[in-house]
Amino acid sequence: MPLLVMKFGGTSVADLDRIANAAQKVQREVERGYDVIVIVSAMSGKTNELVGWVEKTSPLYDAREYDAVVSSGENVTAGLMALRLQEMGVPARSWQGWQVPINTTSAHGSARFIDIPRANMDAKFAEGFKVAVVAGFQGLSAEGRITTLGRGGSDTTAVAFAAAFGAERCDIYTDVDGVYTTDPRITSKARKLDKIAFEEMLELASLGAKVLQTRSVELAMRYKVRLRVLSSFEDTDETSGTLVCDEDEIMESKVVSGVAYSRDEAKMTLVKVEDRPGIAAAIFGPLAEAGVNVDMIVQNISELDDPADKRAYTDMTFSLPTNQVERAKKAIEEATAAGKFAYAKLVTDTDVAKISVVGIGMRSQVGVAAKMFAALAAENVNIKVITTSEIKISVLIDRKYMELAVQALHDTFELEKA
Amino acid sequence: MPLLVMKFGGTSVADLDRIANAAQKVQREVERGYDVIVIVSAMSGKTNELVGWVEKTSPLYDAREYDAVVSSGENVTAGLMALRLQEMGVPARSWQGWQVPINTTSAHGSARFIDIPRANMDAKFAEGFKVAVVAGFQGLSAEGRITTLGRGGSDTTAVAFAAAFGAERCDIYTDVDGVYTTDPRITSKARKLDKIAFEEMLELASLGAKVLQTRSVELAMRYKVRLRVLSSFEDTDETSGTLVCDEDEIMESKVVSGVAYSRDEAKMTLVKVEDRPGIAAAIFGPLAEAGVNVDMIVQNISELDDPADKRAYTDMTFSLPTNQVERAKKAIEEATAAGKFAYAKLVTDTDVAKISVVGIGMRSQVGVAAKMFAALAAENVNIKVITTSEIKISVLIDRKYMELAVQALHDTFELEKA
Repeated sequence: MPLLVMKFGGTSVADLDRIANAAQKVQREVERGYDVIVIVSAMSGKTNELVGWVEKTSPLYDAREYDAVVSSGENVTAGLMALRLQEMGVPARSWQGWQVPINTTSAHGSARFIDIPRANMDAKFAEGFKVAVVAGFQGLSAEGRITTLGRGGSDTTAVAFAAAFGAERCDIYTDVDGVYTTDPRITSKARKLDKIAFEEMLELASLGAKVLQTRSVELAMRYKVRLRVLSSFEDTDETSGTLVCDEDEIMESKVVSGVAYSRDEAKMTLVKVEDRPGIAAAIFGPLAEAGVNVDMIVQNISELDDPADKRAYTDMTFSLPTNQVERAKKAIEEATAAGKFAYAKLVTDTDVAKISVVGIGMRSQVGVAAKMFAALAAENVNIKVITTSEIKISVLIDRKYMELAVQALHDTFELEKA
Repeated sequence: MPLLVMKFGGTSVADLDRIANAAQKVQREVERGYDVIVIVSAMSGKTNELVGWVEKTSPLYDAREYDAVVSSGENVTAGLMALRLQEMGVPARSWQGWQVPINTTSAHGSARFIDIPRANMDAKFAEGFKVAVVAGFQGLSAEGRITTLGRGGSDTTAVAFAAAFGAERCDIYTDVDGVYTTDPRITSKARKLDKIAFEEMLELASLGAKVLQTRSVELAMRYKVRLRVLSSFEDTDETSGTLVCDEDEIMESKVVSGVAYSRDEAKMTLVKVEDRPGIAAAIFGPLAEAGVNVDMIVQNISELDDPADKRAYTDMTFSLPTNQVERAKKAIEEATAAGKFAYAKLVTDTDVAKISVVGIGMRSQVGVAAKMFAALAAENVNIKVITTSEIKISVLIDRKYMELAVQALHDTFELEKA
């Protein structure tokens, strides 16, 4: 029997009507001949309520108890979804993480999968159950305690089940109808993509296109799980949404697939740092320890050279989320006080945004960067920092130009055309 | 290490403040040198919300899914209570039914205990944990599914743990401060009892003194678990509340310990039923099958004797909850239509109440019934039905005399005096 994994997020199971709506989508797949594993999140708002109670009860909470409490929202939805399916005549039952079992590490709050033994669930499918409704976001540690997987945990649960059970596809139902060439709120020319490669999706996800969590896409790529993103709130069929798949499955891809942006970026420059082996480690080690998520890093020759000083100097520029600037400053102060490195000046710019063009076609195509820079220059947008990877070019610009830049690049690469 | 079981019901853990209040009571027992097993209910209102969702989703719900959903409320409270205790410096952890495990039958919605193996929890006490917070009302079936215990399940869980772990005592914290000689809303002379025997408590509980569920008292009596009922909302010490215990522990007991009443009673009389062997079974079998809870049964000689008819006739009177009258009528109609028995007339009185005096001292004391009947006669209260047991005398009277009768009997047996 072919098997499908279907995942419904919090807004898709927010109340009994929406659970009924989701159940209809499941029923349709059963009627098409699939066995289905359904992964459900908690009703939207429930997990936040539970987290709030935990944090109020114990600000420095025991992560094992946190997991025991916050995992309960998914158990409720799983039971209700199974009941709804039964009511519609579909043989279904709910599964909590420990019943499957979903074996994970003991890293409570951010556990990782170890394995998902198939025996228990296979036995129930063999008995005639057509649907297994699994509480997402949770697992079981070797110590017999409930774990949770951290942000996006239900997406990750869905991909892990699709991998473990060799599912034909993993459908992620959410409140958007697919992955777009860019944010439709910025330009009405944004076009829904029929297919996108895992690598492209990864770059788009980590750049702020918040459709799928990075970790679930990574897992899907590793196990070649075909992912489909589609809407819970529209009629959908086999061609709906966007398929995230291996690039081999994408016949002819455009050079650029999408334009992503990230608004809450800041730029910091350490001016006139002594240029010696190990200096990057001396700077970015303490930042990492302080939990600062450094993204782009650029190293230039410093312009503040003193002819009397024979040592070489460099300027070190990096980007980070705006709300981590204070933490970064503190880490730099402590590191310099401890004699790890010295600098002449620290320049901080909290009014920048990151724009990226992404496409696996770039690998075989030259001149993409030049075309991008020319398009931005034509709009008088000054580029502050540039980084490139095999399938992505990112620039930092003044935040006020962000929407303009996205539209200009969307036009330049003709993304409105299929 | 001496061990105590403490149980907190829904109103005692209704919000974070009340959970903190309950945790203080637990901490105090730990400071006195006890290891403590805490049994918690769901926050008040939560279980009803979950039941409502289940019933709306599937009116004829699968009881296994019902249990999976409604058990989640207790898991939340258990985790929060453990967190609160940790925050106060008390080494505590939460336990869900399957983690202990609490092995039960597979009768979902009304499961019964099979056993509670001590190994897992004992190992944690040995590691230095002082408190085990257990989610009440739930267990684990042999099939690996979550079960629930039905009404009063958390009280029963508490008693079962006290029995399994040989607890010194099982303290039931609730919203009343103990067991009274009668309902204080009826007479301000009602007096809190320091001690009451299991048998007396059983009669009072099943008669409507809703402090403890009958099943938990039965279990406590069987395993000789000393139960204490006391208030969550007052400062309490070792002498607070009411101790429910073996009668051997009650030095000198009064003849009557309490006066109970039940308001929602109805009386039905089948007039002129043929008096033959098996007639009671013919009547009460169908009623039992229809789920009618028949309480008192009285059989009299019928006054409607017809001299021409040589057969013997009898009147059969019984009491039942008012809201089961229609169901009882239907069952009787069907049974007579099927030829199981015949009668001349069915008389229904839905305006009656039951008054009972209860006391283990009655066993060795004569004249209690006579004193009771005299007290009622002095107030012109007509008695409609009488039944007696070893430690209880119950009468049905017109409902309008109920409060009067309770006060008269409370005075007659001098229950206001310790």
